[in-house]
Amino acid sequence: MTYPKIPLAQTVVQLCKAKNIKHIVISPGSRNAPLTIGFTHDEFFTCYSIVDERSAAFFALGMAQQLNEPTAVVCTSGSALLNYYPAVAEAYFSNIPLLILSADRPKHLVGIGDGQTINQKNVYENHILYSANLKLDLKDEHNIPEHEEIPIIKNLENKFERLLGIQKDIQTNNEEEINAAINVAIIKKGPIHINIPFDEPLYETVEKLSVSPKVIEPVVKSPKIEEHTIQSCLEDWNSATKKMILVGVNSPDSIDEVWLNELAQDDSVLVFTETTSNMHHASFFPSIDQIITPLNVDELKALQPDILVTFGGLIVSKRIKQFLRKYKPKHHWHIDLKTANDTFFCLNNHIEMIPNSFFSLFLPKVTHYVKSNYRDTWSVVKQYRIKKHKEYLEDIPFSDFKVFHEVLKDIPRNYILQVSNSSAIRYTQLFSLSKTLDVFCNRGTSGIDGSTSTAIGCAAVNQKPTILVTGDLSFFYDSNALWNNYIPKNFRIIVVNNTGGGIFRILPGHKNTENFDTYFETNHELTAENLCKMYGFSYQKALNNEGLQKELTTFYKVGKQPKLLEIFTPRQINDEVLLNYFEFIK
Amino acid sequence: MTYPKIPLAQTVVQLCKAKNIKHIVISPGSRNAPLTIGFTHDEFFTCYSIVDERSAAFFALGMAQQLNEPTAVVCTSGSALLNYYPAVAEAYFSNIPLLILSADRPKHLVGIGDGQTINQKNVYENHILYSANLKLDLKDEHNIPEHEEIPIIKNLENKFERLLGIQKDIQTNNEEEINAAINVAIIKKGPIHINIPFDEPLYETVEKLSVSPKVIEPVVKSPKIEEHTIQSCLEDWNSATKKMILVGVNSPDSIDEVWLNELAQDDSVLVFTETTSNMHHASFFPSIDQIITPLNVDELKALQPDILVTFGGLIVSKRIKQFLRKYKPKHHWHIDLKTANDTFFCLNNHIEMIPNSFFSLFLPKVTHYVKSNYRDTWSVVKQYRIKKHKEYLEDIPFSDFKVFHEVLKDIPRNYILQVSNSSAIRYTQLFSLSKTLDVFCNRGTSGIDGSTSTAIGCAAVNQKPTILVTGDLSFFYDSNALWNNYIPKNFRIIVVNNTGGGIFRILPGHKNTENFDTYFETNHELTAENLCKMYGFSYQKALNNEGLQKELTTFYKVGKQPKLLEIFTPRQINDEVLLNYFEFIK
Repeated sequence: MTYPKIPLAQTVVQLCKAKNIKHIVISPGSRNAPLTIGFTHDEFFTCYSIVDERSAAFFALGMAQQLNEPTAVVCTSGSALLNYYPAVAEAYFSNIPLLILSADRPKHLVGIGDGQTINQKNVYENHILYSANLKLDLKDEHNIPEHEEIPIIKNLENKFERLLGIQKDIQTNNEEEINAAINVAIIKKGPIHINIPFDEPLYETVEKLSVSPKVIEPVVKSPKIEEHTIQSCLEDWNSATKKMILVGVNSPDSIDEVWLNELAQDDSVLVFTETTSNMHHASFFPSIDQIITPLNVDELKALQPDILVTFGGLIVSKRIKQFLRKYKPKHHWHIDLKTANDTFFCLNNHIEMIPNSFFSLFLPKVTHYVKSNYRDTWSVVKQYRIKKHKEYLEDIPFSDFKVFHEVLKDIPRNYILQVSNSSAIRYTQLFSLSKTLDVFCNRGTSGIDGSTSTAIGCAAVNQKPTILVTGDLSFFYDSNALWNNYIPKNFRIIVVNNTGGGIFRILPGHKNTENFDTYFETNHELTAENLCKMYGFSYQKALNNEGLQKELTTFYKVGKQPKLLEIFTPRQINDEVLLNYFEFIK
Repeated sequence: MTYPKIPLAQTVVQLCKAKNIKHIVISPGSRNAPLTIGFTHDEFFTCYSIVDERSAAFFALGMAQQLNEPTAVVCTSGSALLNYYPAVAEAYFSNIPLLILSADRPKHLVGIGDGQTINQKNVYENHILYSANLKLDLKDEHNIPEHEEIPIIKNLENKFERLLGIQKDIQTNNEEEINAAINVAIIKKGPIHINIPFDEPLYETVEKLSVSPKVIEPVVKSPKIEEHTIQSCLEDWNSATKKMILVGVNSPDSIDEVWLNELAQDDSVLVFTETTSNMHHASFFPSIDQIITPLNVDELKALQPDILVTFGGLIVSKRIKQFLRKYKPKHHWHIDLKTANDTFFCLNNHIEMIPNSFFSLFLPKVTHYVKSNYRDTWSVVKQYRIKKHKEYLEDIPFSDFKVFHEVLKDIPRNYILQVSNSSAIRYTQLFSLSKTLDVFCNRGTSGIDGSTSTAIGCAAVNQKPTILVTGDLSFFYDSNALWNNYIPKNFRIIVVNNTGGGIFRILPGHKNTENFDTYFETNHELTAENLCKMYGFSYQKALNNEGLQKELTTFYKVGKQPKLLEIFTPRQINDEVLLNYFEFIK
């Protein structure tokens, strides 16, 4: 076996292995060579080489999102790790375990004008669950960095013994820090940063390990809920005739069918789901904006719940946020092991449990359903909206709205659907999707910076095929995502190209001026065609409905390359079609 | 005139104007709409629209590098500003004034699960000269954000008057913070961050300004040096027979000709310049690595200076750093208004002045030259190396080395040469360049992440034409740089494409294994051709020396589009040709 000679590099690699971190995304560099050597020579790890660190980190994020286990990114010193930051923030707000392993110069070479050196310590301070700043190995007397601060060894006789003692302390401290950092990622599901100084020589290898680091197991506290809390919840629940459940970003199959049915049967319960909730039932309300947008004040008051129960990650729908902030429920419970956002400024109960565990505990204690017409009233509205929605589609021109309808209903069963920000996910919310689809979107920061890379990371570790539906700005922003040797042939991308940021037309700006076109919509004439040639994608395009129908007939068929379908829509009518929709379905 | 309705947006824009910040690079977004409206409706500003914030910030950096005055970048809330970070760090270590203006949600919407919201306050902590965190305007009673923390207004009768008072305080504080931040960028030449919360509505405009913010002028302290310091310097200088001057990254024409001549005439002075020093004299030593690399221990000892005087930014040559750390001078003076890096662990005099001012003060006091053969001895070595260098070139195969020779000697006079990291700048250091060229390279962090964007920023504000010479990894990394509507037709790019990170072959790794090819060299088959088609560049390519000669005859001619020349070199011999070079010139 080949190992890096530097013990600290061995320690990091061995502890990743002990903690079952299997997927390692490496960006090229020299300072991180000891780690690269360590990871790539051990078959336990699946390693990926990706040059652009921004894309590399989103790729790793996409893998971790699917596997629900930490993946690691490894980079050299300097600005490399700053390019990880957008994905680190996304991981932070989306609760995705991501290990950032950055190589660094030894401390005595930081801040003295050495090349490719920045202030790496705690650099992600605002968006990280743990920052471990490791210390340089002092392996033997010849390896003492001349300028490292070790005042203790000054003026002492038995330098060598002292050094051994110091080295042992350093090693113990490093092992503890690495264990702590990775355990936090595992337990709390989020990004952690381990900064690792290495001194030259960096490329030396050995055939036997010189370390056997201590493995500290993560201790998962089993959350418990007080009996009186349950009782108090039950009292409120049983007396409330209007209960709303709102589900944010949520993994597929995370709530047992039995609890979904239980909730669906209760006349006093409205379950609002989003596209990213991955939770389906015929009685639920999956198109929030479709329901709420056309409502008048009286109707909104009628919709106001007594109790709001939320779980899952961030909410896409702006309308439901506006609605609930204005028409506050008396009670807002949020069920989450880790955090509870006071999104509607009325949170009064953070139930620190996994939602499915809470339902298993709570719902069996609900012995009777309170009499209510809450759900049925809104089911009527829902049915009416669905009818109007269908009518509207019969008579609209080729546009983003029409395209999302056609594209979404055409996705084959059992695909993973990745959607980019921001119009793409907002449009997607307006259509009902097959329950066989698993849907994901980077809603932690809602950035346009890494959706394609995330989707490719997802595709790389999944048996199911993945399709990304994205807008043009988001797609071109992350074009380096395609510079990736791990894209499966069954991966698909649909770019809805309205030649700019179509979302800005929907917002209340000043449209159709040069100023608007340039600085808000950022109108462009780019197409994905040349990128497809460059990166080995099969390219198809559609300019109208007939073209789209034709391309879709072949798009999902097996091919020799991954495929991209670019659909050009007329930017100047897209906003009208959308705004008219909300009028029409009233 | 059209202004944003929000007073705080007016204040930011008016203060930028008062402080003569003319170039504003805007990335699309909604939260920053008040700033976008403000900047783009005032003809005082030249505005640029660039979608990818990473590229936008490097583009602004390239402009600021050339203009030596602050340029601004403006973005929306969320992960947008994290994409600025690589350029912020480069600006920090390269002393380039860069204003980051980030829009943010109001405080009461941060940390509660609202969309596109991160922890923006002090996010660049490790690499910023000033972080101004502005406060939300409270314009009138109806505009009180319900959840903003203003405990003082609770339980008070005359709410409106109190509010006016609070608003006045907020406004004064904001004005002071903006003034302070921009002044720091002007005086200290570096990046500053102004984080600006805006509440909805964001798109409203007015026709008259409602603010007239106070302008606080930057106070530049005139540095003075104590007479006894000068005397002490003079004593050391006059008694030293071996004085070395080493110049880092330095602006063209920053040292008067008279002082260059003065230094060149002194037999005891060796002036080592780098490609990025932009300082020329026949008696100087411009190819540091060429001189030092072949030296044996005795020769290195002979080269060891008594006094080392440094000025300018970071040093490219690793060899000179290794040499001076091992063969330390008795004295190391660094001349810089702001900071002095202890790069060689022997700094004992930070002369806090502009180098030219110091020379004007100091050199006239040097009344006699000490007798020395220091310079002449090394001039002999230099001449020998130049001879061997020429000989070597006569007989080498087509390779990176050969290509850099041909490309660099062919650049027309009076161009600005931008060079990317890292092999490109290292190769460039080995050749003598026309003194009519101004040379720049992002050596603050030595990243490969923004060289093309920086070069385009440089080209956008310069009368002189700009050429970028870059390696393939660096070029593909920053391919979004070409998504830019401000590229002048006379802009040129030469990509030396050795299908991977050629620099890793030169380092002591394990070459020619699959592991090396994948994770270190990151071998690829990409070409720039499709990017050129996509972004409107004229594309030329060369596969051998004859092809290169042919392409170069037309490459600099006027065209309808900017041009890119891609030169393919054989990756497997490049390292040998370079390593043999250092053997040959011994």
